[in-house]
Amino acid sequence: MRFTSHTTSADGITERDFVHDGVPGVLWTPAHDPAGLVLSAHGGGQHKRAPGVLGRAHRCAAAGLAVVTLDSPGHGDRARTADDDRFATEIRTRTTAGQDAGALVAEYNALQAARAIPEWRSVLDALPATSDRVGFWGVSMGSAIGIPLVAAEPRVRAAVLGLIGATDALVRAAAAITVPVRFLLQWDDRLIPRGAGLVLFDAFATRHKSLHANPGGHGDVPEHELAAAVTFLAG
Amino acid sequence: MRFTSHTTSADGITERDFVHDGVPGVLWTPAHDPAGLVLSAHGGGQHKRAPGVLGRAHRCAAAGLAVVTLDSPGHGDRARTADDDRFATEIRTRTTAGQDAGALVAEYNALQAARAIPEWRSVLDALPATSDRVGFWGVSMGSAIGIPLVAAEPRVRAAVLGLIGATDALVRAAAAITVPVRFLLQWDDRLIPRGAGLVLFDAFATRHKSLHANPGGHGDVPEHELAAAVTFLAG
Repeated sequence: MRFTSHTTSADGITERDFVHDGVPGVLWTPAHDPAGLVLSAHGGGQHKRAPGVLGRAHRCAAAGLAVVTLDSPGHGDRARTADDDRFATEIRTRTTAGQDAGALVAEYNALQAARAIPEWRSVLDALPATSDRVGFWGVSMGSAIGIPLVAAEPRVRAAVLGLIGATDALVRAAAAITVPVRFLLQWDDRLIPRGAGLVLFDAFATRHKSLHANPGGHGDVPEHELAAAVTFLAG
Repeated sequence: MRFTSHTTSADGITERDFVHDGVPGVLWTPAHDPAGLVLSAHGGGQHKRAPGVLGRAHRCAAAGLAVVTLDSPGHGDRARTADDDRFATEIRTRTTAGQDAGALVAEYNALQAARAIPEWRSVLDALPATSDRVGFWGVSMGSAIGIPLVAAEPRVRAAVLGLIGATDALVRAAAAITVPVRFLLQWDDRLIPRGAGLVLFDAFATRHKSLHANPGGHGDVPEHELAAAVTFLAG
């Protein structure tokens, strides 16, 4: 893990850009010894410094947690493969034509997960000091990566997931998750059918799962849920 | 409102039994000026000092809120009418026989609401000092009373509801509620079909509503949701 920049803000939060095995990321650490580490995965079309990702990092760091995020494959500062371009074009074409792009998004998400999961596990290997108390936070495409990651990675002890619907692969992964899960669902989400989100929530094996549903579209998760998610991960 | 007892516990919480227009109730007040008042309605077959009602009162009072509860019609220290006895017998008979008692429970709940709502409004009139910031907390039969009460009573500014399914009357009342609502649903509730709870959540007019669903049966609402409900009402 090669750090390329280092800044400390007035509230004592240190922010460091890094590159690890060719993957660019950011590590935020709070003013004092972190109480844990949050793996924060961005959504589709976003990147490691998207506004929602930055806001989440600062909330977590203010609560005493370190946060690490990566540019997902084909996102942010990373090269796009022919597959990335093909999916992006086809998803855009279907959406513009008013057609359902759900199956295509699910297929792309599965490709993302296959590429991103080894990267996240490698980053976790490289951050041993904080790896005794690790949480995951990623919704939408972040959960497409996160659900199989959390299922496979015993170091992750709690996860904030959601804004995603059931696929066979995600249901199978959810059925292997036994750590506490907070699952966010947007009641009027036009990208994720409500029933598909409910089916996926149902699939998690853990008894410590809560579904938190709120009105509004895919991007409208209310402030109070973001604050409560930090409390959940810090608790 | 005639107070009949007065005790103060070590943590400064004062508990007073009262009778108001023939209805017995309890008022808890915190050590300092209350930040608001919570109307706490118990569930079917319970009463004003049932363990869950006491626990809720102490949580709220510890958070600086006054709490008032009443014995519901036909419950606790109150006389049972012929209707109360008839419903109790028929619901028990059907349940024992493994038959669905849902329609009968809904009918009884509607009768409860018709009797209890004027009582709650009268108690609110009698407690003017704290009525500028009033919340409601009642699930199951407590929500059968609470949903039409909150719809009719502009002094109630926020409500914790749930563990109940849609009926025509409840959907109509929910569609008139515009204050913030926290709606609790138990994912494996054998008394309330999951879909009926989701339909009722959908019906609330307010944009400030959150569905919090957790694994387990009707009586298994987890501790963390009770704590979060207090924060919601105190917030």
